[in-house]
Amino acid sequence: MSGFAPRPQTPYYAVIFTSQRTALQAGYGETADRMVALAAEQPGYLGVESTRGEDGLGITVSYWRSLEDIKAWRAVAEHRAARDQGRADWYSHYELRIAKVERAYGWDAVDDAPGDPGL
Amino acid sequence: MSGFAPRPQTPYYAVIFTSQRTALQAGYGETADRMVALAAEQPGYLGVESTRGEDGLGITVSYWRSLEDIKAWRAVAEHRAARDQGRADWYSHYELRIAKVERAYGWDAVDDAPGDPGL
Repeated sequence: MSGFAPRPQTPYYAVIFTSQRTALQAGYGETADRMVALAAEQPGYLGVESTRGEDGLGITVSYWRSLEDIKAWRAVAEHRAARDQGRADWYSHYELRIAKVERAYGWDAVDDAPGDPGL
Repeated sequence: MSGFAPRPQTPYYAVIFTSQRTALQAGYGETADRMVALAAEQPGYLGVESTRGEDGLGITVSYWRSLEDIKAWRAVAEHRAARDQGRADWYSHYELRIAKVERAYGWDAVDDAPGDPGL
């Protein structure tokens, strides 16, 4: 399915980035696309899920093998510059959470099982 | 800011639910709203962030004090019934991840600091 991250073996890490966009569009789409591509090249990258509603509220969750991998990605100069521009131009508010994924499962209508294991 | 969950003291838990909607609309909005309201009444509930793009891909992250609180919420009969109907009617695919939030921060354009602590 398009838009979903893979389901690697737990434990791994999630960076949950919830953000409210400003009305400024210039440069945003290109930079967002570039960051997705650049993240995918980093060690420990496991995948990403991202969506944004018409109200400008977006959630992007990226998945990583370790906290060290997340730290290294956040130190990449081009990523730092994008975050600086994000605060200057593109976001009015955001929350960022780093979380250790302990359990995970998925469900698809095609096979229709198991949809709801006893977590 | 509307749409953001509070920032409780870590650690706490996140349920990351990423889903692809079908074209079926009947009952979905009412049930989704009801589940948000019902979740908020449960012990250990800390907040929720949710958005869905025009392509039907949505991410909802609910936050909880403990794994036991999540388990209890998932056992609520009305929630179980909603999940069953979700698989029957409203979703073509979903991924669910339970993760322990270890670090968190937020940023707002009004105060503009600190936006990017060294996580």
